[in-house]
Amino acid sequence: MPNILDATDLNFLLYDLLDIEATLTATGHDRAIADAILTTAERLAEDMFQPFAAKADAQEPSFDGTHVHLIPETEAALTAYAQAGFPAAGFAEADGGMGLPYLLCQAAAGWFTAANVGFAAYPFLALAAGNLLAEYGTEAQKAAYLTPIIEGRYFGTMCLSEPQAGSSLADIRTRAEPQDDGSYRLFGNKMWISGGAHEMGENIIHLVLAKVPGGPAGTKGISLFIVPKFLEDGTLNDVHLAGLNHKMGYRGTTNCALNFGEQGGAVGYLIGEENRGLSVMFHMMNEARIGVGQGASVLGVSGYLHAVEYARERTQGRAVDNRDPASPMVPIIEHADVRRQLMQARSYAEGSLALCLYAASLVDRLRAGEDGVELLLAILTPVVKSWPSEFALRANDIAIQIHGGYGYTRDYPVERLYRDNRLNPIHEGTKGVQGMDLLGRKVVQDGGAPLRALAQEIMVTLGTADAFPQERDQLGALLQRVGAVTAGMAAQAASDPKAYLANATIYLDMLGHVVMAWMWLRQAIAAQGHSDPGFAQGKTATMRYFFRYELPATGPQLDLLESMDRTCLDADTDWF
Amino acid sequence: MPNILDATDLNFLLYDLLDIEATLTATGHDRAIADAILTTAERLAEDMFQPFAAKADAQEPSFDGTHVHLIPETEAALTAYAQAGFPAAGFAEADGGMGLPYLLCQAAAGWFTAANVGFAAYPFLALAAGNLLAEYGTEAQKAAYLTPIIEGRYFGTMCLSEPQAGSSLADIRTRAEPQDDGSYRLFGNKMWISGGAHEMGENIIHLVLAKVPGGPAGTKGISLFIVPKFLEDGTLNDVHLAGLNHKMGYRGTTNCALNFGEQGGAVGYLIGEENRGLSVMFHMMNEARIGVGQGASVLGVSGYLHAVEYARERTQGRAVDNRDPASPMVPIIEHADVRRQLMQARSYAEGSLALCLYAASLVDRLRAGEDGVELLLAILTPVVKSWPSEFALRANDIAIQIHGGYGYTRDYPVERLYRDNRLNPIHEGTKGVQGMDLLGRKVVQDGGAPLRALAQEIMVTLGTADAFPQERDQLGALLQRVGAVTAGMAAQAASDPKAYLANATIYLDMLGHVVMAWMWLRQAIAAQGHSDPGFAQGKTATMRYFFRYELPATGPQLDLLESMDRTCLDADTDWF
Repeated sequence: MPNILDATDLNFLLYDLLDIEATLTATGHDRAIADAILTTAERLAEDMFQPFAAKADAQEPSFDGTHVHLIPETEAALTAYAQAGFPAAGFAEADGGMGLPYLLCQAAAGWFTAANVGFAAYPFLALAAGNLLAEYGTEAQKAAYLTPIIEGRYFGTMCLSEPQAGSSLADIRTRAEPQDDGSYRLFGNKMWISGGAHEMGENIIHLVLAKVPGGPAGTKGISLFIVPKFLEDGTLNDVHLAGLNHKMGYRGTTNCALNFGEQGGAVGYLIGEENRGLSVMFHMMNEARIGVGQGASVLGVSGYLHAVEYARERTQGRAVDNRDPASPMVPIIEHADVRRQLMQARSYAEGSLALCLYAASLVDRLRAGEDGVELLLAILTPVVKSWPSEFALRANDIAIQIHGGYGYTRDYPVERLYRDNRLNPIHEGTKGVQGMDLLGRKVVQDGGAPLRALAQEIMVTLGTADAFPQERDQLGALLQRVGAVTAGMAAQAASDPKAYLANATIYLDMLGHVVMAWMWLRQAIAAQGHSDPGFAQGKTATMRYFFRYELPATGPQLDLLESMDRTCLDADTDWF
Repeated sequence: MPNILDATDLNFLLYDLLDIEATLTATGHDRAIADAILTTAERLAEDMFQPFAAKADAQEPSFDGTHVHLIPETEAALTAYAQAGFPAAGFAEADGGMGLPYLLCQAAAGWFTAANVGFAAYPFLALAAGNLLAEYGTEAQKAAYLTPIIEGRYFGTMCLSEPQAGSSLADIRTRAEPQDDGSYRLFGNKMWISGGAHEMGENIIHLVLAKVPGGPAGTKGISLFIVPKFLEDGTLNDVHLAGLNHKMGYRGTTNCALNFGEQGGAVGYLIGEENRGLSVMFHMMNEARIGVGQGASVLGVSGYLHAVEYARERTQGRAVDNRDPASPMVPIIEHADVRRQLMQARSYAEGSLALCLYAASLVDRLRAGEDGVELLLAILTPVVKSWPSEFALRANDIAIQIHGGYGYTRDYPVERLYRDNRLNPIHEGTKGVQGMDLLGRKVVQDGGAPLRALAQEIMVTLGTADAFPQERDQLGALLQRVGAVTAGMAAQAASDPKAYLANATIYLDMLGHVVMAWMWLRQAIAAQGHSDPGFAQGKTATMRYFFRYELPATGPQLDLLESMDRTCLDADTDWF
């Protein structure tokens, strides 16, 4: 331990790759405050989060029918986190926040997630609820619910899924009945509510999707409500814990089935307008998806760092051309295949982190009103959510493998990091859902403008990649082919939507690899002037690894997409 | 539940694909006995193994300093297994066994492993020890140790690894000092000993690798010893449990650090000759590696079957061309991307099972003295060990994904199956070790004879594949390219062994895909006459899926291998 994150790399990403200094200046801040925040995050993560990650995993939350029990280190860590001011960091100064760049907040958050995702999820859910309230709440709602979130006194949740409706929000059944006083009474069952029950803080603000009777069917009839655990008079609202889910990982965070309205109706307050709840929620969801990618990335990075340390310390075997059994064993990092595995894990995890922080920087640029950024975020969000969830997770898998038998034991953190990370391809829209979002919505949106915006950004990088002509040409040619194949597919989208979408996940994988190659090329370029030549060489080598070992997989994927293959589409359900 | 294995597919593999009937007849058996054994295995697995798999996972073995505690259902299941005669099934009639084909024994074993690998590992370790004793033990050793194993009264272990020497057996330190009575006294520490401590049965026979002082350095100085837990007079031998490992999965099986000789020396008896222990152990190891692949396969198949059931029952969303939110939701198997995931999982898991049972059939053919089979087993063993360990494991990952949030909970078996299976890429030689074995030994062995033997077998199949001309030609062309690339690499093996071996794992992956494509083509051909047309169509569609979605990945892999890429080889250890 620690091996939480690599501060050198984080600074490189923030300052050299993403020029956070410009954003800090533009928002009235400076590097000193950013450094202070990152250093504090690192220290808190090391002292209060990481040491209890294994314990939180082993002693998962329990419910005795009345109370929910967490290990006490949970509240201690979150109190320290709140006292250090982290809940306020990203909110506007007008709302009582510090108005710091989203990119900086995401970087700081990375320390906590990588150290102990089970603890970190509680405040991050509160921040997500707070962001939504900041954007759509009335002044009274903000005073009542946002201010205490910013002060770190209230927690929050997002209540979307129901037992019968996971990915399919059109089919939720929770109903909200309007009352004469303008409030609503909610009735229904919500599922998979992270942070949905605990006894920390002063309140939990549930943001709940429900249908007002008489509204339109499907997603057009969904509204969004504030449903506090405690009402203003301090009494308990009609929200009841039906049970805790027992998970593979992420165990420090309670995940709940909640029943609303078992005793007459849970008091709720509408956010925004009736029947507009889904678009409000999706505003939040897009940032939540970047957050999922970021969480997956930092868990992957932590696994990679542990693997590097183990590979340097563990001796085993000898060089392949050394036949002398009496010679000393070498650290396993001396074996080319171990370095290959480390390269692979690094290219996935560190590349994912670069991508997610880049996406966070786009959020800052969007907030600053920059043109075209919305299109970039539109096309990138499904990639940012899903590529790290799959590939940074593989970095965790590789970290287990490098540890050999030890990695399979709970004495080392790598198997837990894997289990924690395994949630990320599932929540906030499964990978399949992201593929449909990408190909079904984003690629065809505005006549293909989002993909063109992305291609343009990549072309800008290629124009500065003279130091790497081979990779520049490889990515340039690939980009052209992506455009051609996409155009060919899109031409058939209207006439045969099923065939168009049948391989949406393959398209997502393919585009993810293209984006990741671009991220690695950008990193290699940005690293050239780095004060540590070894750092620049490492980035360059990992970039080369990605272009040679990983990116060529897009060739067969594009062949398949081009052919509009129907093998799976046409498979009879009885054949399985 | 059950969803342990698919009896229809198992019968197809045994009878239609691998013609076990011929082997049964040649060994004096018939289909009636085989059917009885498989049916009994299925029933026992359903009744005594599967119902306690989750419990064995949740209540892992514990050691109170004196006794090791397992859940009581463990011994009950293994007693029923022994009483049904399974320990005797595969041993020669001369040794007191039933002399049944290895293929049949492996198929029966699949039921137990898939149902509850934590229970099943104990008897399977005993059988592995028994096989070694049957092959190399003296008549006295067989009477003392093999007979009770066959009778299901004794258990066994393999003690190879040591804390400082996992994959590197040359560096073991356990020493065996010869005594005047012909026995030895062993001193040393062994690690990762599955089944190394428990209180079931009458004895545990440890087979221990150790060095006799004065012998050659490295692997040439390793000898193999029988070290029973209880000596003949009923007293405890000097073998002590240093501690149980707490694992990610496979928790029902104790995994131990054992200390030999803390109190004057553990009594051991030499098997075979001094300093020949490694070759004796590797005789066993080759079958153990087939067993690992088979275990990985059946765990993957079980996950796949659970996923199919879930996908048929769980409703969510609507067809992409149905915009009516009031229409009923459809089972998720109706979604093309879910079918794609099922195809992928099936192609990995069911294909792996076909490969491992094929390898088991080769063991029978080898025992029957057939020419050329040894070469096939030589080249295939690293593939059989590692491809299922990676790809049938991915089938478990896909099964989690198809279950969505439910798959991430411990209420469904799929996350446990994943955790159980995650051991398989590690033990009995990591994937990296298998790659080195394949490229460093098997490919260059006998002037390339093993790969030629494999190519010849594949060509035989291609000659019967007229029903699938496209796949026949695809595989035929690929096979030619594999030969050419391998020849180019091998030409540089002597002059630059490091570069030759640098991408050994990529070679292993590539050849694994080629072998798997062949297995799927063979299955599609064999299924054509199946009494259930849907069965044949399912096999054909999955074969097509594999050729279209998976096999093309070998193209970039072969490009990379051909280039003798040095990116990872030349990476400085300081760059990580």
